[in-house]
Amino acid sequence: MEAAITESGGAPRSVADLGEWGVIEALAARMPAGPLTSVGIGDDAAVVAAPSGSVVAAVDLLLEGRHFLRSWSSAYDVGVKAAARSLADIAAMGAVPTALLVALAAPGTLPASWALELADGLAFEAGRAGAGVVGGDTARADSVLLSVTALGDLAGRPPVRRSGATPGDVVAVAGPLGHSAAGYALLQAGVTTARPELIAAHRRPAPPYEAGPEAALLGATAMIDVSDGLLADLGHVAAASGAAIAVESPRLALGDPLAEAAALVLAAGPSSSRTSSADSPASLALGWALTGGEDHSLVATFPPSVALPPRWRVIGAVHAGDGVTVDGNPYQGPAGWEHFR
Amino acid sequence: MEAAITESGGAPRSVADLGEWGVIEALAARMPAGPLTSVGIGDDAAVVAAPSGSVVAAVDLLLEGRHFLRSWSSAYDVGVKAAARSLADIAAMGAVPTALLVALAAPGTLPASWALELADGLAFEAGRAGAGVVGGDTARADSVLLSVTALGDLAGRPPVRRSGATPGDVVAVAGPLGHSAAGYALLQAGVTTARPELIAAHRRPAPPYEAGPEAALLGATAMIDVSDGLLADLGHVAAASGAAIAVESPRLALGDPLAEAAALVLAAGPSSSRTSSADSPASLALGWALTGGEDHSLVATFPPSVALPPRWRVIGAVHAGDGVTVDGNPYQGPAGWEHFR
Repeated sequence: MEAAITESGGAPRSVADLGEWGVIEALAARMPAGPLTSVGIGDDAAVVAAPSGSVVAAVDLLLEGRHFLRSWSSAYDVGVKAAARSLADIAAMGAVPTALLVALAAPGTLPASWALELADGLAFEAGRAGAGVVGGDTARADSVLLSVTALGDLAGRPPVRRSGATPGDVVAVAGPLGHSAAGYALLQAGVTTARPELIAAHRRPAPPYEAGPEAALLGATAMIDVSDGLLADLGHVAAASGAAIAVESPRLALGDPLAEAAALVLAAGPSSSRTSSADSPASLALGWALTGGEDHSLVATFPPSVALPPRWRVIGAVHAGDGVTVDGNPYQGPAGWEHFR
Repeated sequence: MEAAITESGGAPRSVADLGEWGVIEALAARMPAGPLTSVGIGDDAAVVAAPSGSVVAAVDLLLEGRHFLRSWSSAYDVGVKAAARSLADIAAMGAVPTALLVALAAPGTLPASWALELADGLAFEAGRAGAGVVGGDTARADSVLLSVTALGDLAGRPPVRRSGATPGDVVAVAGPLGHSAAGYALLQAGVTTARPELIAAHRRPAPPYEAGPEAALLGATAMIDVSDGLLADLGHVAAASGAAIAVESPRLALGDPLAEAAALVLAAGPSSSRTSSADSPASLALGWALTGGEDHSLVATFPPSVALPPRWRVIGAVHAGDGVTVDGNPYQGPAGWEHFR
């Protein structure tokens, strides 16, 4: 489809130039449907295998200006992020992702190359999760909006819900905490060359999908992906489970990159309300880890007898009661981490 | 959740007043998850039975200003229409709808009552199709946008694709043709009291979902739902099947309501470009039936030996060749019906 993207004279084309069908064909050519798909893009609906007799499904919106800026993220980044958000929800049920359906609303003036790079990002992340892109829809709108539906298969296991955490369980996390928030803060502070891996983590989160089914096999009692922030998401688990969750901040093991990023952001001055109340790099880094969302790491509860593989880091425990505490102090909502300084 | 919708003083509340969780809880309370759903709204993802070991999935966007106007359609209407568009895609594969996932972007000022009526419309149409609402997402945007993903089950049958039409097959339709276009034209012409069933057909399409699996059981060789217009959608079938499709306009049996609506619209004057070139009510009505979309009726091809139940009306035949003709004249794109006057 490359030939369709530039006019014979080489002028860049817009999605309006390609037309709806041209856009769909060009996107479809870049997004493999995956091995479980018997009908992909191009019919009324897709047909995807659901080997264990049920399907796991989640949808997430990604809006320009709200979830991403075209000036901060490439089209490829946006594709990766849109896919990761939905795919992580599938993994958080203990399921294996199988397929994505992508609805794209965009201005007619959007460069066709942007749409194609978006497709490359979607395809990359779907492939990393073992899924294909099997369907979609397009429409015109004033800004770019993506709605990504992910499907998955439980391989015969029951889903790991939010509601099964039991007093005595340990709380463990797979994947980074606070990296996306740190990258966002670096971008906001204009510190765009330091710690590129954190900026990359903000632009292109890389959820540990395979840790989801692994947790299910290990006997996880509850699981969620860290999309709103560790404490907020553990709050969902605590509420659904009717239990209390205690996080021990020294066990978060935040690491040097986060501390270094925090020092750089503080040195750059109080460029955002989020960072202005932190008085030390350690406090700022802890805030990112506790309340920064969008890493899409997985946090799960396990019976204490379970021997966890190394990628699962124990960060706390489940107790009788309700709510979430950090080092014994109650978490009191999105701004609550400031109480933990 | 009714109590959450008005302040104690009875002032109308907005979705921003309710907050994201309040909106989700209020919507979820109005939308049953359906009998096949083991995990519905409220976890990372839904879990829905896929009894035949595969899942049929489609996504459609519905945008304010493009697909609907809040001044012309109630929130309930918009909910019905959004659900119908996606559910019809499932039926058009010969599958039984099982579930919807609904992503809603809306201004914070949207009245909470509007969102709840939307949920009622979504739930009504999902229920009419035998499906439940199992998941979703919400976000803020400048205008209302819905992305609805529908899932379905094939009950062990192969999917009915667009590509199986074979020379010798008959072409048959279940459901009305041109009713949505007629209703739109009546609204555009300001004739809002005549033929209320046509205006209702525009606001709230009622696809004959059960005709989809019925067609599959009868041995349909190809099927599609009429979303872009009969000729455009038959064009998709002809192209995918490598065959020609001949429509016989006298067999469309348009009926008195369409003819009466056409006379009323013509009498109201040339209020839209779409109707200004039609010189007779019969021509205008035929145009609606051939090129008016959004009825979401089902059109399928069947071997000539199949005895069709009454709701399937034969309107043409499949031949060797390519393209779509009406009474022997080739269809030449969206404006092509004007050649058939």
